[in-house]
Amino acid sequence: MIMTVKLYDYWRSSSAYRVRIALNLKQVAYDSETVDLHPAVRAHLSPSYQAINAQMRVPAVALKEGVFGQSMAILEWIDETWPTPPLLPRLPLLRLRARAFAQTISSDIQPLNTPAVLDEIRTRFGAGQDGLDAWYAHWIRRGFLALEADLPSGPGRFLFGDAPTLAEITLVPQMYNARRFNVDLTDVPGLVDIDAACRDLPAFAKAAPEAVRTP
Amino acid sequence: MIMTVKLYDYWRSSSAYRVRIALNLKQVAYDSETVDLHPAVRAHLSPSYQAINAQMRVPAVALKEGVFGQSMAILEWIDETWPTPPLLPRLPLLRLRARAFAQTISSDIQPLNTPAVLDEIRTRFGAGQDGLDAWYAHWIRRGFLALEADLPSGPGRFLFGDAPTLAEITLVPQMYNARRFNVDLTDVPGLVDIDAACRDLPAFAKAAPEAVRTP
Repeated sequence: MIMTVKLYDYWRSSSAYRVRIALNLKQVAYDSETVDLHPAVRAHLSPSYQAINAQMRVPAVALKEGVFGQSMAILEWIDETWPTPPLLPRLPLLRLRARAFAQTISSDIQPLNTPAVLDEIRTRFGAGQDGLDAWYAHWIRRGFLALEADLPSGPGRFLFGDAPTLAEITLVPQMYNARRFNVDLTDVPGLVDIDAACRDLPAFAKAAPEAVRTP
Repeated sequence: MIMTVKLYDYWRSSSAYRVRIALNLKQVAYDSETVDLHPAVRAHLSPSYQAINAQMRVPAVALKEGVFGQSMAILEWIDETWPTPPLLPRLPLLRLRARAFAQTISSDIQPLNTPAVLDEIRTRFGAGQDGLDAWYAHWIRRGFLALEADLPSGPGRFLFGDAPTLAEITLVPQMYNARRFNVDLTDVPGLVDIDAACRDLPAFAKAAPEAVRTP
């Protein structure tokens, strides 16, 4: 059993934030090594980081067999490696729904709003900041409205019962991005409530960008 | 146990193609209901489909509890519902690597090249067809080169042993898109080989767009 995970991390990366939440929920200790994604630094593109992680992305976990990235794959690995508390519901249908909720964020929203994507749109198509801000908000609102329209109605304080799952672990970092870019959230009150309930939990609070911020 | 799955499907959707492959590998019978995504039809945006699936996307599976989308969540649900043959390796590290390989495609490539995204770039930023084609190829090549640089070196005919996993199930449809848009594949020979080996398998061949094409 691994006792301490080494995480290549950046305080403002919403994908890294997911992994921090999951490790905290499992009470797994981790050492965070900052890879500064700030546009003025771009440490993830440095030769030294490329030698460590050919994908040149954050987050990634360092295991004795190598360094492995992709946040949603890491979340499933965390859940299989440390089964308690589970990050997915027990019933197959709820597992499908929780993973689908998470994927709406991890595939339909977040990939369209990464710094690399915004850079490409700026460079290739001459987009200005207003156009990029509208693009950013568009994908969040499209995804969030779809999630709000289909919120589970089961009992429990969270989306799929009495504990947060992969759904909340992806929602909370995306809500952080939405607030950071002043995206209108007035018509997604269910998501706002779930986000607030999660951020009251120590595992989420300790993982928040403002709690782990590096200079 | 569900005996026949109803799949909302479109022959050319690479995400639907993933689900068809998985169902075939499990030898699970399914009824395919076409949702015509062609730009001249856009049946997924019709009120009748919206009433069925609020997310207005394909693929989706119809269960007695409702209609549920998101291909990667559906793949995990298929694997949990029909465990044989498994769609993931047995060892935790290989499960992490197979899921990460799949996620490089399902999060870093495919979401950037959907018709909805290309439409938004055209409308918002005035991109022409050449610009869109270059954008399309850019994300495929960036993701494929990262995957090629880090191909597993273990024994076995496929990426993670002697049977295809979620990695191949996402790779083959993405290779189809790459060929369709004439993306240069000369420097990803490992991916080309794996793709060819998979397409020789009946489960993959029966799921291919040309095999299931609707008018």
